[in-house]
Amino acid sequence: MVIRVGIVGGTGYTGVELLRILAVHPEVSVSCITSRSEAGMPVADMYPNLRGHYDLAFSEPDVAVLGDCDLVFFATPHGVAMRMVPELMSAGVRVVDLSADFRLKDLDVWANWYGMAHESPEWAEKAVYGLPEVVRDEIRTAQLVANPGCYPTAVQLGFLPLLEQGLVDPKRLIADAKSGASGAGRQGKIGMLHGEIGESFKAYGASGHRHLPEIRQGLCGAAGGDVGVTFVPHLIPMIRGIEATLYAELKNPADFDRLQALFEQRFDDEPFVDVMPFGSHPETRSVRGANQCRMALHRQEQSNVVIVSSVIDNLVKGAAGQAVQNMNIMFGLKETMGLEAPALLP
Amino acid sequence: MVIRVGIVGGTGYTGVELLRILAVHPEVSVSCITSRSEAGMPVADMYPNLRGHYDLAFSEPDVAVLGDCDLVFFATPHGVAMRMVPELMSAGVRVVDLSADFRLKDLDVWANWYGMAHESPEWAEKAVYGLPEVVRDEIRTAQLVANPGCYPTAVQLGFLPLLEQGLVDPKRLIADAKSGASGAGRQGKIGMLHGEIGESFKAYGASGHRHLPEIRQGLCGAAGGDVGVTFVPHLIPMIRGIEATLYAELKNPADFDRLQALFEQRFDDEPFVDVMPFGSHPETRSVRGANQCRMALHRQEQSNVVIVSSVIDNLVKGAAGQAVQNMNIMFGLKETMGLEAPALLP
Amino acid sequence: MVIRVGIVGGTGYTGVELLRILAVHPEVSVSCITSRSEAGMPVADMYPNLRGHYDLAFSEPDVAVLGDCDLVFFATPHGVAMRMVPELMSAGVRVVDLSADFRLKDLDVWANWYGMAHESPEWAEKAVYGLPEVVRDEIRTAQLVANPGCYPTAVQLGFLPLLEQGLVDPKRLIADAKSGASGAGRQGKIGMLHGEIGESFKAYGASGHRHLPEIRQGLCGAAGGDVGVTFVPHLIPMIRGIEATLYAELKNPADFDRLQALFEQRFDDEPFVDVMPFGSHPETRSVRGANQCRMALHRQEQSNVVIVSSVIDNLVKGAAGQAVQNMNIMFGLKETMGLEAPALLP
Amino acid sequence: MVIRVGIVGGTGYTGVELLRILAVHPEVSVSCITSRSEAGMPVADMYPNLRGHYDLAFSEPDVAVLGDCDLVFFATPHGVAMRMVPELMSAGVRVVDLSADFRLKDLDVWANWYGMAHESPEWAEKAVYGLPEVVRDEIRTAQLVANPGCYPTAVQLGFLPLLEQGLVDPKRLIADAKSGASGAGRQGKIGMLHGEIGESFKAYGASGHRHLPEIRQGLCGAAGGDVGVTFVPHLIPMIRGIEATLYAELKNPADFDRLQALFEQRFDDEPFVDVMPFGSHPETRSVRGANQCRMALHRQEQSNVVIVSSVIDNLVKGAAGQAVQNMNIMFGLKETMGLEAPALLP
Repeated sequence: MVIRVGIVGGTGYTGVELLRILAVHPEVSVSCITSRSEAGMPVADMYPNLRGHYDLAFSEPDVAVLGDCDLVFFATPHGVAMRMVPELMSAGVRVVDLSADFRLKDLDVWANWYGMAHESPEWAEKAVYGLPEVVRDEIRTAQLVANPGCYPTAVQLGFLPLLEQGLVDPKRLIADAKSGASGAGRQGKIGMLHGEIGESFKAYGASGHRHLPEIRQGLCGAAGGDVGVTFVPHLIPMIRGIEATLYAELKNPADFDRLQALFEQRFDDEPFVDVMPFGSHPETRSVRGANQCRMALHRQEQSNVVIVSSVIDNLVKGAAGQAVQNMNIMFGLKETMGLEAPALLP
Repeated sequence: MVIRVGIVGGTGYTGVELLRILAVHPEVSVSCITSRSEAGMPVADMYPNLRGHYDLAFSEPDVAVLGDCDLVFFATPHGVAMRMVPELMSAGVRVVDLSADFRLKDLDVWANWYGMAHESPEWAEKAVYGLPEVVRDEIRTAQLVANPGCYPTAVQLGFLPLLEQGLVDPKRLIADAKSGASGAGRQGKIGMLHGEIGESFKAYGASGHRHLPEIRQGLCGAAGGDVGVTFVPHLIPMIRGIEATLYAELKNPADFDRLQALFEQRFDDEPFVDVMPFGSHPETRSVRGANQCRMALHRQEQSNVVIVSSVIDNLVKGAAGQAVQNMNIMFGLKETMGLEAPALLP
Repeated sequence: MVIRVGIVGGTGYTGVELLRILAVHPEVSVSCITSRSEAGMPVADMYPNLRGHYDLAFSEPDVAVLGDCDLVFFATPHGVAMRMVPELMSAGVRVVDLSADFRLKDLDVWANWYGMAHESPEWAEKAVYGLPEVVRDEIRTAQLVANPGCYPTAVQLGFLPLLEQGLVDPKRLIADAKSGASGAGRQGKIGMLHGEIGESFKAYGASGHRHLPEIRQGLCGAAGGDVGVTFVPHLIPMIRGIEATLYAELKNPADFDRLQALFEQRFDDEPFVDVMPFGSHPETRSVRGANQCRMALHRQEQSNVVIVSSVIDNLVKGAAGQAVQNMNIMFGLKETMGLEAPALLP
Repeated sequence: MVIRVGIVGGTGYTGVELLRILAVHPEVSVSCITSRSEAGMPVADMYPNLRGHYDLAFSEPDVAVLGDCDLVFFATPHGVAMRMVPELMSAGVRVVDLSADFRLKDLDVWANWYGMAHESPEWAEKAVYGLPEVVRDEIRTAQLVANPGCYPTAVQLGFLPLLEQGLVDPKRLIADAKSGASGAGRQGKIGMLHGEIGESFKAYGASGHRHLPEIRQGLCGAAGGDVGVTFVPHLIPMIRGIEATLYAELKNPADFDRLQALFEQRFDDEPFVDVMPFGSHPETRSVRGANQCRMALHRQEQSNVVIVSSVIDNLVKGAAGQAVQNMNIMFGLKETMGLEAPALLP
């Protein structure tokens, strides 16, 4: 079987990362990649790492052409997928949307954070939030998968076992997260110039960030009830990688003794989650370019605070890699297909 | 008045930073700088930025020579100052120790974290912990000042107003701190190679770091009682700068309205603490090379968690700059003398 | 004496660098700084390193106000200064133009590289090309100084002694130069995003760069005749610093023995040129933030190629620092005033 | 067929890169990886990117065990392979040596640059210098392949067409090369700390570098006679990547018109050399992690200097990737096997 894939909005970092991964996927053929602004330009001219791998040029988005695909990935800014998805759904095409359009179930919250009304409430309801470690079975049969955000992936995976087992105070969760600059996309913003963010570090969105409601929604699901979570993202002077340091109060300090086993069991069958030995310090470089989340647990003396450090590559397990993982699940392929290569270290 | 200054252990990053700052200090003459390993080498050969500024060469440490100074800075690994300080005290020399030897009052805790018994308990007791924003008056007359650590400076300053006023739960403090690589000093460790830490980010010391007891001691002082603080440091792929994101639970959410004014008042007369407008995001580059701490407050909706982001240059306000600030206070100079230049941005 | 200074176009990296340097210059008062796009914004809001140093806000450029200054710096894109300078000249104001408008004497060449006709040929002729190491005396009395470009400064200084003495083949000069990203200025160009240039290195403008005619003009002056020079700039994934590796063929290999002495003599009285020992490798960090050019000579066995490695900070000796140096000369101040601080290392 | 592979000296960056590439090579089984200093440590403990990919631990080097392999890679410092290779040759094992031991044919030159006498002159003579683009047929049957150095790979490939066709003055070649820090290996040297080389750029080895004789040997081969080449390496503040800017004088300027076609033809059948359009600027990131050399030609007006910019990943086409390419050739596999993935960009 060869899956005919279309990519909408391929000029950003998520788009090129999809192309990089799919270039060596044995069961995929990329049949079109769209960009309004760059229509006509060969993708390998924009991304020279793809020279020799693709003959494709960017094309104007055309639902007729996309409707001929087995699967369409949206790698677009928010607001695009919600307008195009209904027609593709009608055409029987399956979609993995890497944008935020279908991630939130509460559309008032969505409208509030994204500054526009949602235009496809029907599909927002039907969409499966594609975190395979939580809802693998639903993904298998989904027609529309909302691919999780980068921060939400790192944060949710790290908190999951604690909340699912009800071991921590769900009202006192703190996620201090840090990301490389590629998370901001590939637009000509002064604030993302090398001269602005090189050799510097800062928090941003500390009073509220779009990923907060997505994180909250996921953590509520895991906890089976309301949660209180503080989420502060930071910008690291590097390109790829997210590290999230998570803090939660253990209800019963005696549970510390079984946390490591709990985490290992929770993710034992997960090909893309690696629980490192207690007290390890996962490095973002250990997942650079790889569809992996690595995490480790820590405890400080005389404290009942569980500390989890969780790392992913924001463009892979936080975006394009997870999207391909979802595609593999949707089409009954081996879940790791095309995602086997180790991270690039150093 | 010209202060004759000696520097013990000048080959590390703290040493060269002292030399950089003192090169333009109008009331200081550096009369000796010691290094056992590099004795005889001109300092400008090791640090070419100092070519044309110093004719000095490193010399063997010699208490007779140091005893002739008005002030001696120790920029040594722990364990050195505590052996040399008593003799210098007897000689009437004043000392600012940038190492950890005299920072902790509880010498059992010190011995536990630094792996050796303290050899100068008398002076450990007499030493003034030199955070000018807290104990300026004691510094004026101190013969021995223990210069605060880098993380403790950023963390304490950010928590101070909250704890002094008793506005937050002192048992639930979290300090998620991040530092550039110069904080690890200038030793040939594989783990600090550019190839190891470039383009990567990680937590370290998450199960316990030497700065934790120092932070706890300072915060207890501010709170006037015991505190519970979780402190996790991280390594940023850059050279200079610390950002600490601090989390505390407000006892009374209504207090949010007066926090900004409280912080501004607390540091109104402080030349080296800058409270930025509510909701700002201090960047480490805004203090690069400058003896400044900049901080800002944040609140997330429906939350009673106060968020403080605090930045310093670990080598300046976190080490050499604060040491010179202490020297200025000790010798009755203008506190900002030699420390007026703005940060290097970009 | 206090020099009243105006800055036109202060929002770029050259503008903020001027402000950083002038903040501690004892004889300067910045009376206005203009920006059409940011008029009304306090400079310290855009550049938080200047908080506490300046109360100024950006203002609309106004020749009446600028005409009241003793000196105006232009830190504008090309094409701006040439339109405003004539009026300021008439008003008796002195100008240091950091843009390229008055650097080239051949206005056809200028028009060709900058894509517009020159609008002030009269002042292009009168302007003094402000490389103090070559034409200090003319700068003293100049009303209009064209501040040299960054690459041209590093390249000219390194070739000067060889060409002035006629020791090398002037037709076979090669300048392989590398610059940090701040050289490209502070505009929202995709190509200068951290995500684009971080962790990567490339040549650019290898078929022709605007600094080539400026370099050629300067080298012709030094050689007293025509030269042939190949100049290839490269982009380094860092913020500040230029390194130029220069290659020239010695006419008489025996001259190798006297090159070091020749270079040392040539720059012996120059406060801002440092000839390091033969075989040294100047690092850009050794001049970071400092108005210095450091250089060193090399020879490979069995070769008559002289190799010169020359480093500057592109924003300081390559722009704002040299501009202040020129101002000091023009106003009879000590040439090093405000420029004494050592480079920031590490 | 599965090739049983041994790796001697696997703790360095070249070793981990071999493991990364071989992890997804379909015809290879790594049966042992040696390290005296780390014997017993699981490789995935040292290199967490390999967690889940290898169960191997480092072992003491043992010729009996290595003798059981089909192929042994040496990723050792110089001086090791020359002592172990003869015994492996006798055992019929094939070897790809990534160190410098067998690269030079003139053993006096070797001894001079590497500071020791060569201990295996017989095999130094028999070894094939493994640049497939030059001697592919000899590699097929070689028992011992000397894998080229990183700089020599980038420099030779770029000069090859010019010298083979005799179009340029062979006595006036200049190679200005720049490398990321991983080229210096993974030893705890102060000079390679992030704090030392981050945000800085410098030349090194400008008076003579070990790769110079290797470059000269290769270029002499291409030119069919003696050459004069000046080679200056530089250190880039990044991890992976080499860019070499090459300068040569065209004997007949009219030849410029056919250079592009010449280069394209020369490398038309080469899977790992990509000649970009005339005037392109290859970026090192376009080959990050990939076994590729990309190059482009430039000409400046009124000049007969050919400029070639050539980029590789020093750890891949400059080391481990080229070694696997050589292995593929030696064992009759598809030359691109295991080396198909595009570079990691951004």
